Amino acid sequence: MIFCKEIQERKSNRLFSKRNDIDRQVIINIITAATLAPSAKNSQPWRFFVVEEPSEEFIGFFPHNKWVKTAAFFIVVYMEPSATIKREKELMAIGAAIENMLLEAQAEGIASCWIGECFERQEEIDQWTGVHNAELMAVIGFGNKRTDSARAERRALSDVVYNWVQP
Amino acid sequence: MIFCKEIQERKSNRLFSKRNDIDRQVIINIITAATLAPSAKNSQPWRFFVVEEPSEEFIGFFPHNKWVKTAAFFIVVYMEPSATIKREKELMAIGAAIENMLLEAQAEGIASCWIGECFERQEEIDQWTGVHNAELMAVIGFGNKRTDSARAERRALSDVVYNWVQP
Repeated sequence: MIFCKEIQERKSNRLFSKRNDIDRQVIINIITAATLAPSAKNSQPWRFFVVEEPSEEFIGFFPHNKWVKTAAFFIVVYMEPSATIKREKELMAIGAAIENMLLEAQAEGIASCWIGECFERQEEIDQWTGVHNAELMAVIGFGNKRTDSARAERRALSDVVYNWVQP
Repeated sequence: MIFCKEIQERKSNRLFSKRNDIDRQVIINIITAATLAPSAKNSQPWRFFVVEEPSEEFIGFFPHNKWVKTAAFFIVVYMEPSATIKREKELMAIGAAIENMLLEAQAEGIASCWIGECFERQEEIDQWTGVHNAELMAVIGFGNKRTDSARAERRALSDVVYNWVQP
């Protein structure tokens, strides 16, 4: 049992109900949550492109994810790296910011799914967003939950902790 | 105002009270929270080394962080990358797992600080932990909060969102 309810309850959700508008304040809250993640020397490398009304062209970037049609909105995550901070640190900060987005969505009763497929379409997506001075890192879809999905199984703690066995 | 209380309240904390034991269940909960982060194809690249009784030698790895002496325990985070998953995705998953640890600590009333300094001492730390088949990614210190620290200032939303201005 863990104490942070949103961590306990969040699951990737690939089944959204038919697209419905979501209050813009929800999107503001989700991005605000992202910006509260920690980053090395407070570099805040995260940048966002909000897709409130996904066009057919945008949806077409993710042919293997049929559910994207039902997402209410997307947030495209970019990284604007600093010249002086180790790339690994910046990438972890981006991951922390994304996790905050997923957890804040959970707190707001909104389902989400992190789309890994975006790297394959990087050039096309960048052309579409017009962002060329930062690196595409992720596309997150958000929507109204249709049904509850199962959580992918996790390794046991004893498989991920090197030196320590759960009592 | 965001809805996930832990995201709203978490801050890096470099002032712990004199070292006190912390219930082992707290450490279990923090690592469990980490494992609930999402990862590409559920690869779960995170691995952990728990330092429950930090030795002088361990503390000496972080000479620029005087507060480490006061931490109750540390979790060293490693990445065991998959041959088939893009490195950026694995690094973001590690960042998401670390953020879950910080947020779960917050939910448990435990202060935390992500130590960026670990990359400079990678070889020594690996020798100390004896972990050689994975990459050192972070060291997180946890402890009992002494005083509240200020949060590093964040950029305005209009500075991190490319196409969208907060109404």
